[in-house]
Amino acid sequence: MKLDHIGVAVRNIEQSLKAYEALGLEAVHRERVEKDRVDVAFVPFEGGRFELLEPFEESSPVGKFLAKRGQGIHHVALGVDNIDRELTRLQDAGVRLIDQAARPGAEGTRVAFVHPESTGGVLVELVERPHE
Amino acid sequence: MKLDHIGVAVRNIEQSLKAYEALGLEAVHRERVEKDRVDVAFVPFEGGRFELLEPFEESSPVGKFLAKRGQGIHHVALGVDNIDRELTRLQDAGVRLIDQAARPGAEGTRVAFVHPESTGGVLVELVERPHE
Repeated sequence: MKLDHIGVAVRNIEQSLKAYEALGLEAVHRERVEKDRVDVAFVPFEGGRFELLEPFEESSPVGKFLAKRGQGIHHVALGVDNIDRELTRLQDAGVRLIDQAARPGAEGTRVAFVHPESTGGVLVELVERPHE
Repeated sequence: MKLDHIGVAVRNIEQSLKAYEALGLEAVHRERVEKDRVDVAFVPFEGGRFELLEPFEESSPVGKFLAKRGQGIHHVALGVDNIDRELTRLQDAGVRLIDQAARPGAEGTRVAFVHPESTGGVLVELVERPHE
């Protein structure tokens, strides 16, 4: 498994991007993900990228996270070659999954979330990128 | 800047390692960091590693984090070539720092923390590894 991205819940993408720019990091891509009720901006660094998540609906998962925990890291996404095989392996190992089967993510990916109960509190997303 | 590690606050390293092992990730190194009152275990993945942090004192920074927020991601560490130059640059850019100057970290590194207020809620650690 390798790092794909680190998801960060923010109240305002514009304002957060100024902070990341001060760190020397810039956004390369922005997108509205209707299904998850969030606007996202990707901020790459060597070896991965931050995915800033600004909810446009308070009742969305990220909106609820912000209300409960405030701004901060929301999830860590790890890239896998074959997400179906990985999910079967995890189920067999007794790992608790949020998504029993892969579902469509941004940019043609297939994704599934592992329950934080099974990772010591870290919400882990598995990501299979489209094969070339 | 490139990812160095993702720090995760956990109540019990042994128990958490079982979960990471189920994900296919294994610890390679363990260490007690007296100064920060934590035991740490490093769990590598391609492109970085998780640093599991178990406090052995409730009043330590990670102990307080656990009491307030529960288990989960504590900080993201980004590697830099020259931490002194980086800190000067950030101060000039108006970024709020927790450590005004670099201090010794684990494994001969020099580290400094950036205040989460300046990064949209993410506690960022800068790490300069010993130059070969």
